Amino acid sequence: MDLKSFVTSLGSSFLIFVVLMIIFAWLSTRQGNVVVYYPNRILKGLDPWEGGSGRFRNPFAWIREALSTSEEDVISMSGVDTAAYFVFLSTVLGILVLSGLVLLPVLLPVAATDNGNKSSSDTTSNGTFSDLDKLSMGNVEAKAPRLWAFLLGTYWVSFVTYLLLWRAYKHVSALRASALMSPEVKSEQFSVLVRDLPAATEGQTRKEQVDSYFKTIYPETFYRSMVVTDNKKVNKIYEELEGYRKKLARAEAIYAESKKTGKPEGTRPTNKIGFLGLIGKKVDSIEYYNEKINETIPKLEAEQKVTLREKQRNSALVFFTSRVTAACAAQTLHARMVDNWTVIDAPEARQLLWSNLEINFYDRQIRQYLVYIVVFLTIVFYMIPIGFVSAFTTLENLEKILPFLKPVVEEQAIKTVLEAYLPQLALIVFLALLPKFLLFLSKLEGIPSESHAIRAASGKYFYFSIFNVFLGVTIGGTLFTTIKRIENNPNSVVTLLADSLPASATFFLTFVALKFFVGYGLELSRIVPLIIFHLKRKYLCKNEAELKEAWFPGDLGYGTRVPGDLLILTVVLCYSVIAPIIIPFGVLYFGLGWLILRNQALKVYVPSYESNGRMWPHIHKRIIAALLLYQVTMFGYFAVKEFYYAPILIPLIIITLIFAYVCSMKFYRFFRCTALEVASHELKEVPNLERVFRSYIPPSLNSEKIDDEQFEDALSQVSRTTSMV
Amino acid sequence: MDLKSFVTSLGSSFLIFVVLMIIFAWLSTRQGNVVVYYPNRILKGLDPWEGGSGRFRNPFAWIREALSTSEEDVISMSGVDTAAYFVFLSTVLGILVLSGLVLLPVLLPVAATDNGNKSSSDTTSNGTFSDLDKLSMGNVEAKAPRLWAFLLGTYWVSFVTYLLLWRAYKHVSALRASALMSPEVKSEQFSVLVRDLPAATEGQTRKEQVDSYFKTIYPETFYRSMVVTDNKKVNKIYEELEGYRKKLARAEAIYAESKKTGKPEGTRPTNKIGFLGLIGKKVDSIEYYNEKINETIPKLEAEQKVTLREKQRNSALVFFTSRVTAACAAQTLHARMVDNWTVIDAPEARQLLWSNLEINFYDRQIRQYLVYIVVFLTIVFYMIPIGFVSAFTTLENLEKILPFLKPVVEEQAIKTVLEAYLPQLALIVFLALLPKFLLFLSKLEGIPSESHAIRAASGKYFYFSIFNVFLGVTIGGTLFTTIKRIENNPNSVVTLLADSLPASATFFLTFVALKFFVGYGLELSRIVPLIIFHLKRKYLCKNEAELKEAWFPGDLGYGTRVPGDLLILTVVLCYSVIAPIIIPFGVLYFGLGWLILRNQALKVYVPSYESNGRMWPHIHKRIIAALLLYQVTMFGYFAVKEFYYAPILIPLIIITLIFAYVCSMKFYRFFRCTALEVASHELKEVPNLERVFRSYIPPSLNSEKIDDEQFEDALSQVSRTTSMV
Repeated sequence: MDLKSFVTSLGSSFLIFVVLMIIFAWLSTRQGNVVVYYPNRILKGLDPWEGGSGRFRNPFAWIREALSTSEEDVISMSGVDTAAYFVFLSTVLGILVLSGLVLLPVLLPVAATDNGNKSSSDTTSNGTFSDLDKLSMGNVEAKAPRLWAFLLGTYWVSFVTYLLLWRAYKHVSALRASALMSPEVKSEQFSVLVRDLPAATEGQTRKEQVDSYFKTIYPETFYRSMVVTDNKKVNKIYEELEGYRKKLARAEAIYAESKKTGKPEGTRPTNKIGFLGLIGKKVDSIEYYNEKINETIPKLEAEQKVTLREKQRNSALVFFTSRVTAACAAQTLHARMVDNWTVIDAPEARQLLWSNLEINFYDRQIRQYLVYIVVFLTIVFYMIPIGFVSAFTTLENLEKILPFLKPVVEEQAIKTVLEAYLPQLALIVFLALLPKFLLFLSKLEGIPSESHAIRAASGKYFYFSIFNVFLGVTIGGTLFTTIKRIENNPNSVVTLLADSLPASATFFLTFVALKFFVGYGLELSRIVPLIIFHLKRKYLCKNEAELKEAWFPGDLGYGTRVPGDLLILTVVLCYSVIAPIIIPFGVLYFGLGWLILRNQALKVYVPSYESNGRMWPHIHKRIIAALLLYQVTMFGYFAVKEFYYAPILIPLIIITLIFAYVCSMKFYRFFRCTALEVASHELKEVPNLERVFRSYIPPSLNSEKIDDEQFEDALSQVSRTTSMV
Repeated sequence: MDLKSFVTSLGSSFLIFVVLMIIFAWLSTRQGNVVVYYPNRILKGLDPWEGGSGRFRNPFAWIREALSTSEEDVISMSGVDTAAYFVFLSTVLGILVLSGLVLLPVLLPVAATDNGNKSSSDTTSNGTFSDLDKLSMGNVEAKAPRLWAFLLGTYWVSFVTYLLLWRAYKHVSALRASALMSPEVKSEQFSVLVRDLPAATEGQTRKEQVDSYFKTIYPETFYRSMVVTDNKKVNKIYEELEGYRKKLARAEAIYAESKKTGKPEGTRPTNKIGFLGLIGKKVDSIEYYNEKINETIPKLEAEQKVTLREKQRNSALVFFTSRVTAACAAQTLHARMVDNWTVIDAPEARQLLWSNLEINFYDRQIRQYLVYIVVFLTIVFYMIPIGFVSAFTTLENLEKILPFLKPVVEEQAIKTVLEAYLPQLALIVFLALLPKFLLFLSKLEGIPSESHAIRAASGKYFYFSIFNVFLGVTIGGTLFTTIKRIENNPNSVVTLLADSLPASATFFLTFVALKFFVGYGLELSRIVPLIIFHLKRKYLCKNEAELKEAWFPGDLGYGTRVPGDLLILTVVLCYSVIAPIIIPFGVLYFGLGWLILRNQALKVYVPSYESNGRMWPHIHKRIIAALLLYQVTMFGYFAVKEFYYAPILIPLIIITLIFAYVCSMKFYRFFRCTALEVASHELKEVPNLERVFRSYIPPSLNSEKIDDEQFEDALSQVSRTTSMV
């Protein structure tokens, strides 16, 4: 890619960004869109616009607001997980700014004033020399003393990263601590999850088994237990019932509206009862759904009883009267054998993956390894198609393979646009297919909570992106040339990546620019959710509940957002010394990201769970993985440059490993469990344990009609148990 | 080594064994030796001989007694650690017996009836063919279908090992559980050790810091704390004082005796006060030592005060009123940062390595790695001399290098004895030098308890023996020939061990036989301790205390005993299929060992600590390491035999790794910490916490004169603390 197409690409991305900004400034001030642009504030019962109503509002007020909000605001509006995500963004921003401040003024002149490049040809994508390439390390002659500057640059970037990561880990650890020691009563802090219950002895119910076990160990602080049941069938009936209720509400809304608009007696809505409501007998909707509801309720109640009595599984939730005991219990070995009575801290009720709880210890281990194998195969075999996609979609290759395209492609305007976007678009579309698959796989592992499954999926996605996008594109982009070279000299596999890096520099510059201009532009302006909402409101939604469902924003989506950001970070780090010109792009990406997501976190997205920053060690580990990849790559690239002092980089790699080890030794355990000094902080009130307990009853089993007497088999009550023991 | 020298060696070993047995039968029935042969029973206040007094006793009664005692007897006489050691011996015995029952009748005929050996020459030590070698796998022709029998033999031995190891782990785990749930009050079950205390805040003493921290977390079950002090100086003064007291008692005994034997007024003993009592002024001993004692006591008391007030260090012992809380506390994270407030379970008071407690978190890490490096270097560089020793000490090599020895060595009788013993003796002497060094290194790591340090040293010693004795002798014995071969064909490094094994088979047969006949003969007859005791009694001991010191037997010495046994096991396992004739030797070693050590454990040795079977996972891991080495060696040896189906052994290696993983997952955690269901068993009495607390005060700080008021700074008391907080 030459300079011209690069500037074109950059320019058009920027244009799209500006347009999207204007659209946002205009649309976000309109009353009708308020639920799309301020749902989080509305759901929290706050005024969408702080001071000054919409119409006369400064269209750039959001920037001032985003900049002026403190971390506490973020935590109160969006939780600790979001705050940890911002620590990530600002840490990376810090790393890049500090790196850029030194690398740009030093390395660019060093590279630009050398003339080594004229004799070598491994610096530009297609051998055409451009001004951009003159600013990169590729322009420096092999073995030149100037390479010392780049070597020191590598050290500088690494040490900046160590420093800021260390501070960030400390900071997130403090955030987590203050969340866990908060005086608010949080149900999950009084509960533990017990898995792998052994078979109960003859004549003992599960509940009696669990109660007597925990009462013996915690005679004073045990409150109550809830045996996990197999809820598949009861959930199905419950969903059916909820479906009928929604349809009934909808039919009633239509009827009420028809009274207003048409005849005063109104038109009673009807529907067909056959396949998808398209065939079959026509019936009066309100009557029909009322009837269905009346039919289903007793069915549900019967199934609830059966579930609670007969579908108990080998795990349970146990509730304590004290936070310290719950935190203790979650960390200690209860039974002699580890595969019995496994106790872990309970996730929030809303993120409990109920159906995974019954999977036993060995199954979980086996599932985990099977999933790892599947993911490994996925990563390896996706690499082949992605390599080809990226090799084919460079225009010259396309011309070679599909010669009939030549007349179209040679058209200057088309050529420029195609050259700028084709490979990147192919890549972005390609990557959008995967996350759901990885989340599905992660849940198969038997993980008990949603947040944990998302972390696991996100980790897999990160490694996938690195191997397939970064390595795939870099090595794949020079696939045709490199295969030949490897054939001639098999040893060059070692320096394969280092060798291919410079050729893909402009590709990644464009990739990053596209991501931040178009990606964040779409993010802020929320064009797609806006259109969907308005369409739904006009044609589908008939009542308040349906309307709310239409604008409900969901959460930030860490599962894909974090690996996406980490991929950008990896790219920018790996190029930071080779082509320092990428650093400003990285700074823009993370700076804009921080600003725009701050707005989104405060006003738009509603977190769907709270894991108190457990995402952080995960992010930290992957930043270090990126740093390691960067250092190894640099080592390889210095070797390509035939620089004798390249081994000076080996201590750096060892320091990174030590740093990773020390961090995980020092900080990690607190993210896996709750420190007792934190849990022992005082509460502002005596916890209402009945409420804590009730919060874990799944909605499909929650019924006012079912009194405690019937819950007895699966849900225990201490007073009753005590008299039995 | 040919058959004749092998039989000679075996015969002479057996002769020594028989002589030692007779000596034992004779000496052990004499009243005067009772403290040498029955010290453990005497110290436990039991009658040395159960039923029938010494003189008329059946000299083989000890065998019946050893066989008839149950595991409970062993535990009550010698503790759970000893019982776990016997589980080890009987498990290995079981493995070898079951292996032998199948391998001996099947593999010996298969090997003996083949004639492949005549054409190959890699089977005997020096190319001389012997009957022994005919019974080994070396006698089977390369590529022969008969090798299938050996391959199946390899599988059989492995599966027998899995089965018995699994049962043994379960069994030891049950032993540990019943020890930990015993209704007896054991001090260490109410205590935890807290290390890495952060700096106390201004105006707060260490004791206040610890007390307030633990009172917040465990308001109901916290009892008291004891801050660890730097006792170096006070210990020194205390030892000085104890020395004077001993000398005074001795002087008084001499004086009393002189009254009886000599003049009625007696001779007052005197001594010189200069260097080693050899020079200087002559003084009256009783007066002198009394004076010294009176001088030292106030010094000790002053130093005790100073130590308690000013030499407090960054760790403490914390005592709880409940076993469950102590078990909980030892497993849970207390502070956010792992390098602060590290809580682990307290070792017994008697095995606490007081001076290691103040070493902080990072120092411990660094020390550990440094020690690992030192041990690694030791292992690697010891290999060189030991290889040469073993290569030189084969007679033929000696003759070559030192030709003037030839006339002596050619003498038939000398030659036979030398050939039989020279290499083994060199080896045994060599190995005796190391354990103390390794224990010293292990203590440098900052380990808090004696038993842990011994485990660590014993692990290092095991790896040392394997690498240096087993591999060193095997490869070193053929060093001169193999070096040449490697020069010609570098790839043969892979099959080096497999290639060298058969040549060293008879060496190890003799080694094992020497170990069990002479080693266990000496063990049972206790010739050396007996002689030392009688010499001391006659010439040195003047009073009861000194006499007791002279016969006090010490403990079983797991630190060297376990790695020794494991070395034999490794040797026997590795040869079990190659030369099955070694199996009966292994059976004899472990069978005799079980019998003789049973006697010693019941009647002689006094355990110096109790770790409730924590040694087991350590032994288990190393048995598996031996099994792995065996499987890898067999794989190599089948490759040497050019057997096409050798890769069938690869799944076996994978199964071993999985087995090791599953065992450590399932069982290990309970050996690292106490399961709560075990700790929650009822006690037979309300624990006397004052006594629990006092048991941890080191003798040098323990003084009736020092009342609680003065202990206040380092030793806390709840009532006082409560009023302060």
